[in-house]
Amino acid sequence: MIYLDNAATMPVYKEAVEAINQVLTADFYNPSSTYPGGIRAKKLISEARTTLASMLECRPEELYFTSCATESNNWAVNCGFRNKKGNIVVGGGEHSSVYECAKELKNKGFDVRFAKIDSSGLVNADSLLSVTDRNTCFVSVMHVSNETGAINDIAALTKAVKAKNPKIIFHADGVQAFLKTDCSVKRSGVDLYSISGHKTGAPKGIGALFVSSKMSFRPFIFGGGQENGMRSGTENVSGIVAFAAAAKKYRELFDAGRIKELNSVLLCELKKIERMTVIAETAPRTGMITSFSAAGTKSEIIQSMCADEGVIIGRGSACSSRHGGNRVLSEAGFDARTIDGALRLSLSPETQKEEIIKAVAVIAANIEKLRGNRIG
Amino acid sequence: MIYLDNAATMPVYKEAVEAINQVLTADFYNPSSTYPGGIRAKKLISEARTTLASMLECRPEELYFTSCATESNNWAVNCGFRNKKGNIVVGGGEHSSVYECAKELKNKGFDVRFAKIDSSGLVNADSLLSVTDRNTCFVSVMHVSNETGAINDIAALTKAVKAKNPKIIFHADGVQAFLKTDCSVKRSGVDLYSISGHKTGAPKGIGALFVSSKMSFRPFIFGGGQENGMRSGTENVSGIVAFAAAAKKYRELFDAGRIKELNSVLLCELKKIERMTVIAETAPRTGMITSFSAAGTKSEIIQSMCADEGVIIGRGSACSSRHGGNRVLSEAGFDARTIDGALRLSLSPETQKEEIIKAVAVIAANIEKLRGNRIG
Repeated sequence: MIYLDNAATMPVYKEAVEAINQVLTADFYNPSSTYPGGIRAKKLISEARTTLASMLECRPEELYFTSCATESNNWAVNCGFRNKKGNIVVGGGEHSSVYECAKELKNKGFDVRFAKIDSSGLVNADSLLSVTDRNTCFVSVMHVSNETGAINDIAALTKAVKAKNPKIIFHADGVQAFLKTDCSVKRSGVDLYSISGHKTGAPKGIGALFVSSKMSFRPFIFGGGQENGMRSGTENVSGIVAFAAAAKKYRELFDAGRIKELNSVLLCELKKIERMTVIAETAPRTGMITSFSAAGTKSEIIQSMCADEGVIIGRGSACSSRHGGNRVLSEAGFDARTIDGALRLSLSPETQKEEIIKAVAVIAANIEKLRGNRIG
Repeated sequence: MIYLDNAATMPVYKEAVEAINQVLTADFYNPSSTYPGGIRAKKLISEARTTLASMLECRPEELYFTSCATESNNWAVNCGFRNKKGNIVVGGGEHSSVYECAKELKNKGFDVRFAKIDSSGLVNADSLLSVTDRNTCFVSVMHVSNETGAINDIAALTKAVKAKNPKIIFHADGVQAFLKTDCSVKRSGVDLYSISGHKTGAPKGIGALFVSSKMSFRPFIFGGGQENGMRSGTENVSGIVAFAAAAKKYRELFDAGRIKELNSVLLCELKKIERMTVIAETAPRTGMITSFSAAGTKSEIIQSMCADEGVIIGRGSACSSRHGGNRVLSEAGFDARTIDGALRLSLSPETQKEEIIKAVAVIAANIEKLRGNRIG
C-alpha cells in the first residue's frame, strides 16, 4: 500500500505510542492531585508544553492544550469576537472549523465578512484589507491551505491588518503549517495560532492554541480551572505527552530539502498526465500537499480505482468529504468540472521517491482508463 | 500503596490499553476517509457508541462523543440556554464544569438561578421548584455528588420540573453515576446526560453527552460535521474505543452487593475516630464516595501524612483542589472547621476490604497524632 492521503499518510509514531503506554500504565494520576503521582503527571504536561512552545517560539504559558484543532479554532473565533458592535473578517478558504464557526456567528446576526481567495487558495490581501476596518475586532487566516498546500504570508497579513487597527486579534490556523514551514509565532506576530497533534504523528484527540500573552483572552470551556484557568477539563495527559513526543520525531525526520526534491519528482510525474492542472502550482507551497485535477474525470472514481490497486490518495479535506463538492476550490474560482476531478496528494517526512513514481503511474493509468482512451 | 482517592483509584484498564494500541498501530485512519482503513475506523466508533448507548439505555444516535465531561457539561449549559428571555436553574452543588458555565452566563447578564442544596449535598427539591417557573428553559442537576456520593433522584426531579413547563430541557451530570447506580436515561427521563471515560477505567480525554432525540439541540463545536454534525473535530478514535472497552470491564467487575458490604466496613472503621462526622451518611449514596470530617484537623495535613505512609486519600474534587475551601460543602451548610477537616474516600470495583481497614487505621492514627492527644 502507498499512502498519499493527508488523513492517512501520518501513522502514529512509535515514540508517541510508547509515551502513551507509559502514561496509561504508570503515570495515570490526575495532574491536579497533590501527591507524588499527580505531581509527576503535572510535570509531564509541563515538559510537553515546553517542547511544543519551543517549536512555535512562544513561551510555554502561552500554549494551551485542547482536544483538537477544531476546538482551538472554535475557541479562537468565538472568543476573539467579544465586541458585539465590531465585525470579524475570515478568509474564504478557511477550514470548516473556522468557516462554520464564522457562519454560525453570522446566522446569529453578527457582522461577519469573508475575504476573497485567489486561484491558489491563498487569501487575497486586497480583499482582506478592503473588508477590514477600524471596527474589525478579529481576523482569521489559515497559515497553509489544507486544500492546496499554499502558504499565506501571515506575517505580512498580520502587519497589514494591525496597521488598520492595532487592537485587531489575528488568528492563524496553523494545522497544515506546524513543523512543515516556518511556524514561529514570534516572527509572524500572530495573536492566536491553532495546531493539531495528528498531523505530525500524534494520535487524534489532541490539539493546542497559542494565545499571545500580550492580550487578554477568555476561556471557551469553563470548569475546574485546568490549563491555568483557560481550558477546563481533566487533562488528556497521554495525548499531551504523545503530542510532544511525535512532534519531536517529526522534526527529526522532516528534511525540507528532501521534500523539495520529492515535489519536483511529483510535479514531473504528474505532468505526464494530459489535460491536467496543478492547483496553486506557482504559489509558495509547503510541498506536503499537492492538489491537481485531470479534466473529464471524477475524483471519487479515480480514488476508488487507485485504492483497489493499493494507492491511497485524497480528494480534498476528509472533514468535508461527506459534503458534496468542494467549497474552497469553488471559492478559488474553479469550475465544476475541475472540482469534480480534483485530487489531493499528501507527503509525510518518510515518503519515498519510488512511492511517488509508482503512485502517479497508477493514478495516470486510471485517469486514462476512465477517459476511455487508454493506449494499449 | 493503597489508593482511595477518586482521581487515582481508577487506573486505566488493561482492556482499554490494548484497544488503544490496536487503534494507534493498525486502525489509525481517519474515520471520515472512504477507503477500507477509514471505514474500519468508523465502524470501531459505531460499535463503541452502541456499547455505551446500551449502558445508558438510549439509542446509539443519541450519544455524542466529546473530549471530556467538562466539555459535555459546557455544551449542555451553553446550548440548553437558547432563549434569552428565559432563565436557567442550576443546583448549588454542581461540579465546577456546570457551575462555572452558569456563572459565566450570569456574568453576561442572563437570568441564572441557583437552587439550594441540603447538608448531604443533594439539591433541595423545594428550592429547585421554587426558582423554576414557566420561563425556565434549562435545568441542570447532577446525578451523584462528586463531593458526597449522594444520589439525586433525577427521575423525580425531571418529572416535577417538567410539570412546571414541559419544554424545559433537563440535564444531569452523570459522571459519578455512570455504571455506579441506575444510569438509564430511559427510566430517568432526562434530556441530556454527561459521562466521562476516566471514571470507569478509560484514559483521560474522552467523554460523551446523551442528547434525547425528542428535542432539537445545537452543536457547541462547529466544523467538519463529525458526530452527525453535532460535534466537529477529527474523532479521538483510540479514546472512544477505549471508553467502551473500559466501561465493559467496569460493568463486569462492579458488584453492587460487594460495594454495600465494603461501605459497612468503611463506616464501621471510620466511626472509631472520635469527633468525626460522615457527610451525607443517611442520604442515598452510591457507596463509591464517602466524605467525612474529623473536627480540629486540617485535611491537607492528614492527606499528606497518609501519603507518606502509602495511603492516598482525597479531599474534595481534584478539579477544585487548587482553589481554597470547598464551595459545595460550604453551600451544604458546613462550617469552616468541618470543611477544613473534610476528607473524601473513593472506592473502585476492585478495592479490597483489607485495604479499607488498613487505610482507615492510618487515617485515624494521623488524626490522633495531629490532634496532639495520641495515646501511646
